[in-house]
Amino acid sequence: MNKPYFPRSEDGVAPLRCTVSRRVRFEEVDALGIVWHGRYASFFEDARAALGARYGIGYMDFFSEKILVPIKILHVDYHLPLTFDESFTIEAVLHWSEAARLNHEYILRNKKGDITTTGYTVQLMLDANGEVLVIPPPFFRDFCNRWKNRQLHIRQSG
Amino acid sequence: MNKPYFPRSEDGVAPLRCTVSRRVRFEEVDALGIVWHGRYASFFEDARAALGARYGIGYMDFFSEKILVPIKILHVDYHLPLTFDESFTIEAVLHWSEAARLNHEYILRNKKGDITTTGYTVQLMLDANGEVLVIPPPFFRDFCNRWKNRQLHIRQSG
Amino acid sequence: MNKPYFPRSEDGVAPLRCTVSRRVRFEEVDALGIVWHGRYASFFEDARAALGARYGIGYMDFFSEKILVPIKILHVDYHLPLTFDESFTIEAVLHWSEAARLNHEYILRNKKGDITTTGYTVQLMLDANGEVLVIPPPFFRDFCNRWKNRQLHIRQSG
Amino acid sequence: MNKPYFPRSEDGVAPLRCTVSRRVRFEEVDALGIVWHGRYASFFEDARAALGARYGIGYMDFFSEKILVPIKILHVDYHLPLTFDESFTIEAVLHWSEAARLNHEYILRNKKGDITTTGYTVQLMLDANGEVLVIPPPFFRDFCNRWKNRQLHIRQSG
Repeated sequence: MNKPYFPRSEDGVAPLRCTVSRRVRFEEVDALGIVWHGRYASFFEDARAALGARYGIGYMDFFSEKILVPIKILHVDYHLPLTFDESFTIEAVLHWSEAARLNHEYILRNKKGDITTTGYTVQLMLDANGEVLVIPPPFFRDFCNRWKNRQLHIRQSG
Repeated sequence: MNKPYFPRSEDGVAPLRCTVSRRVRFEEVDALGIVWHGRYASFFEDARAALGARYGIGYMDFFSEKILVPIKILHVDYHLPLTFDESFTIEAVLHWSEAARLNHEYILRNKKGDITTTGYTVQLMLDANGEVLVIPPPFFRDFCNRWKNRQLHIRQSG
Repeated sequence: MNKPYFPRSEDGVAPLRCTVSRRVRFEEVDALGIVWHGRYASFFEDARAALGARYGIGYMDFFSEKILVPIKILHVDYHLPLTFDESFTIEAVLHWSEAARLNHEYILRNKKGDITTTGYTVQLMLDANGEVLVIPPPFFRDFCNRWKNRQLHIRQSG
Repeated sequence: MNKPYFPRSEDGVAPLRCTVSRRVRFEEVDALGIVWHGRYASFFEDARAALGARYGIGYMDFFSEKILVPIKILHVDYHLPLTFDESFTIEAVLHWSEAARLNHEYILRNKKGDITTTGYTVQLMLDANGEVLVIPPPFFRDFCNRWKNRQLHIRQSG
């Protein structure tokens, strides 16, 4: 990974980060004993969901505002394999943007701290009619303001 | 499989059968090179969906009547393994019942014709409020009448 | 669940229990907003793997002895649905047996403590040639002796 | 998709194409009634496997030469959703390259012929020690020669 997935924020707003820990499950491993490449979308989602829950911008928060945030792009770069029962971490990084989109980057690390996998997703925001939003909904603009002004509160999980 | 999964119909109505063919996909195989046991629910569903589509009693047919048919019991007996790229068939057998339930049996066979896996599912019918139906909806009673009287027509797939 | 899945141990040896906590992931939910019935084999495996890791009888322990423990029977009874983001627990219960098999029972409970799902699996032990073992391997007999004599030590996870 | 995923072959060798047909299965659909974004890696693999089987460069062909071809990059662009029971096609396109890599592009189309999803994968070739191959194995060089000279024979599936 030489080139960053997303351009650096011109506003100088630091990205938000959230890391979850997991262990490779038996059913995630293929005939070669390593995690099948198609499972990483699920790993990314685990960390993205945790970040969303922490900052109040998860699927349920958008749903309750009748906004959908479908994935438009998924990209995965595989550097090292993960094997059965191996413990690893998934870090989701939400990059700053005031547009009606969510730009997440992901970094997976094994127990030794080596980066095994990186990638990114881009999500758009749609209203109840499936129309792409140009301006984010009020609750998200409010979230961006607090983010920019370093006033984010971490929500307790249920 | 010594004992039948479902008692024989007292009405003497022959069960309905539908067989689909598949090939084991790479992602379905585990670290031992055989299909992971948890994937068979999906195989059963393939054949059940094909049978439902053929006779007009699929998920979509129930949905359009606002009836849900959730699985209440799943049972799988594993006799022989299936390996990567192996072709096999899944036969779904719908046993006769006039009650508001669907009793399916499943038989998987490998290329040599050996039975690799058997099992069954039981589905109840629920109305839009989630209440269990005691009497099946009219469209299903009509289906049962035609079944009993050997007047079933096979629907063309789209 | 009126009838127990496994007969009560005549030796009076108490079963082993292990409970893991989870939250329903987005990808596990179907078009009806509830966990798809086929995912529970994976939930069962999570708790079974945790129990195996705790007592030194996990997949890896058998693998290192060149013994396979394939699933021969899977049974699931669905009592209540689980919905997206719902937290729940999975309890695996290993019933006492000195035979070359593993009899696990599973109990899932939602946040309120209601039992949502129950089921069981039966695993046989095979040697490297795929032959069914009549007598368990030494490491497992040793485990059974310690179990019977209440001398089991819980292993620390890595 | 304005920019091509792979540069055009300078040798003027036409890419190889293979299309498979599928129908969206119930378990592939999420709470919104559309295919969950993480399932497309599996759709891509279906078409890639069919292309590999047709031309003798599938997983099994590499395995028998003790070569692994792990995925190094996966990229998916989501244009339109796919819904439950919808039939669609997946076209895999293998772009010409004499290097020890496989560059596949994928195009999914719904029943109306609209492009719903596009993407690509890049695979490297590794020897039995996990070392990246610089030169492809003989059987693959032979395949490339026949490809370039338009002498490819389509293999019958089993």
